[in-house]
Amino acid sequence: MTDEYFMNLALELAKQGEGQTGSNPLVGAVVVKDSQVVGMGAHLKYGEAHAEVHAIQMAGHHAEGAVIYVTLEPCSHYGKTPPCAELIIRSGLKRVVIATEDPNPLVSGKGVQMLRSAGIEVITGVLKEQAEEVNERFMHFMRTGLPFVTLKAATSLDGKTATMTGDSKWITSEEARLDVHTYRKNHQSILVGVGTIKKDDPSLTCRLPGVSKQPVRVVLDTKLTIPLQSKIIHDQAAPTWIFTTSKAKLEAIRYLENHGVTVTVLETETISVREVLQQLAKNKITSVFVEGGSTVHASFINEELYQQLIIYLAPKLIGGLHSPTAVSGEGFQLMKDVPLLQFSTITKAGPDLKIIAKPIEE
Amino acid sequence: MTDEYFMNLALELAKQGEGQTGSNPLVGAVVVKDSQVVGMGAHLKYGEAHAEVHAIQMAGHHAEGAVIYVTLEPCSHYGKTPPCAELIIRSGLKRVVIATEDPNPLVSGKGVQMLRSAGIEVITGVLKEQAEEVNERFMHFMRTGLPFVTLKAATSLDGKTATMTGDSKWITSEEARLDVHTYRKNHQSILVGVGTIKKDDPSLTCRLPGVSKQPVRVVLDTKLTIPLQSKIIHDQAAPTWIFTTSKAKLEAIRYLENHGVTVTVLETETISVREVLQQLAKNKITSVFVEGGSTVHASFINEELYQQLIIYLAPKLIGGLHSPTAVSGEGFQLMKDVPLLQFSTITKAGPDLKIIAKPIEE
Repeated sequence: MTDEYFMNLALELAKQGEGQTGSNPLVGAVVVKDSQVVGMGAHLKYGEAHAEVHAIQMAGHHAEGAVIYVTLEPCSHYGKTPPCAELIIRSGLKRVVIATEDPNPLVSGKGVQMLRSAGIEVITGVLKEQAEEVNERFMHFMRTGLPFVTLKAATSLDGKTATMTGDSKWITSEEARLDVHTYRKNHQSILVGVGTIKKDDPSLTCRLPGVSKQPVRVVLDTKLTIPLQSKIIHDQAAPTWIFTTSKAKLEAIRYLENHGVTVTVLETETISVREVLQQLAKNKITSVFVEGGSTVHASFINEELYQQLIIYLAPKLIGGLHSPTAVSGEGFQLMKDVPLLQFSTITKAGPDLKIIAKPIEE
Repeated sequence: MTDEYFMNLALELAKQGEGQTGSNPLVGAVVVKDSQVVGMGAHLKYGEAHAEVHAIQMAGHHAEGAVIYVTLEPCSHYGKTPPCAELIIRSGLKRVVIATEDPNPLVSGKGVQMLRSAGIEVITGVLKEQAEEVNERFMHFMRTGLPFVTLKAATSLDGKTATMTGDSKWITSEEARLDVHTYRKNHQSILVGVGTIKKDDPSLTCRLPGVSKQPVRVVLDTKLTIPLQSKIIHDQAAPTWIFTTSKAKLEAIRYLENHGVTVTVLETETISVREVLQQLAKNKITSVFVEGGSTVHASFINEELYQQLIIYLAPKLIGGLHSPTAVSGEGFQLMKDVPLLQFSTITKAGPDLKIIAKPIEE
């Protein structure tokens, strides 16, 4: 049994917390003694016990002299829970194997240091890449200070999001539309332009079982022209945050605020998606699922402020010179300026193709 | 060793003639005696010997009392070569295993009948589906009297075929563009609208080695406004056929004909792609590779006159409200009227995704 074997198990445990830990990272831990697993744990809920605590508790007296595998550097500070590094020292573990160090520059390396000072053998970087992948959103947030952004679109094979008359129900299959809800579940916010609200009056909630906390619904609405009877204003199903500009009328702001909507008025005449992301970050939103429409997508693409693109491609040809497409705006002028993405995964969602692509980091 | 095993070998042999047999089907044959392969053959070139002839020749005196596996019903009539059924009888083969019967209703079943009358055991339908797949173009042509049509497009992930300024060099990778030439090689004609000629002045030839006969270049040009200096008029690299209408000016027709271009003037004011296909069929063209532009694609799609769609999808987002897409025209008005295709294969072509989809037959 290699270190990789046990770390892989710890990563599998970590993944079980997906969509449940809020702005916290996914972490898994495995305690091993004489090549036998004696404890397993994961961080499953924001504010509750860390992975190491669960694993050491399960190990009980077997923790003495054992090895702990943990997917993220154990914390060394008092947060909502006491520092895990201290617990590890106190429990008599003799060796700690870590996949990735804490990306937060304020604490990175301090957990390792604390453990080493106590005479414990520490190894880092085991399955580091996989561990970064599991926590890509958290890592991105800690490194850039901005939420992780996923753009989502559903189009026909010829790139259309609706017919020329605006009919879009439905381009993709029920399976694909259900799959979208797993992304709503594992992002902390869903973002759309006001055009989507006007066109579809959507609920923008996750209708899967096991959703402990609905994602925040974020609307970009430059002139604050959102229809006042919109579902997301009245249904109380999830928080609704609207970003607008100096062009917004005060009475509309008052009406919305009276109905429990959080309205943020930017000091500009247009909405900068970077500023929106900064504001969301300030409010502890670490991930955004952008569902369109095409001008909103264009804004994130032009600013290169997205980390992942998910396209559901239906095996249909809609055609039409003026049928809408997934990304509008001005677009790039020259092919040489168009950034390259790379395909991450390509799978089926019912009869449709599901393509995940990511910008290539420079 | 089962019948399927040897038929599979015969199919592999058949495929080697791809792009070389003109309007003839791909056929492979294997002669087996006492479970040993004693002869193999394929039809490799239009007008030359059939698969059975090569296989029986290779078998020599071993053909006596042997079994022959052949992917298509042996012919019973005198064409460019004498009937294969007769040769099989004369060579003393005792059993004939056939994948598919001849799709030509005039001769279908007659080869089988001739063999049975001579006391030979005949089995049909072994690996029938695979054999039909290998010869899908020939089968389609024989059954419908129309050429097999492949539509090709190259787009970004957001469905654009160029930027808003018209720049399209290049959306897809060199690998994808090279792959296109294998389709030019294995279709008997390449079809484009005059807009593509005006925009790119392409050669529309196959630049792969081993091309014995360049595909015919077909241009749809309603008003016959093709630039008279276009490469395809002067380069003599392949036949050029232009379809136009009553709107064409006589002097343009004369100029083109004087330069060896075949001009077909339809009696209508618009070009019916069905009529074009009928004319091509009359001229022994059994397959058409449609390379665009977007209105030409739209015509084939609206008339449901295509059997295959190949899209190369580059991992790029071009954006732009008015950037061109692969299928224009009027498009469908309602989602419920949009026909469903099915994905046939999804592979990579360099960094790009290559998607083949086919209309679902009703």
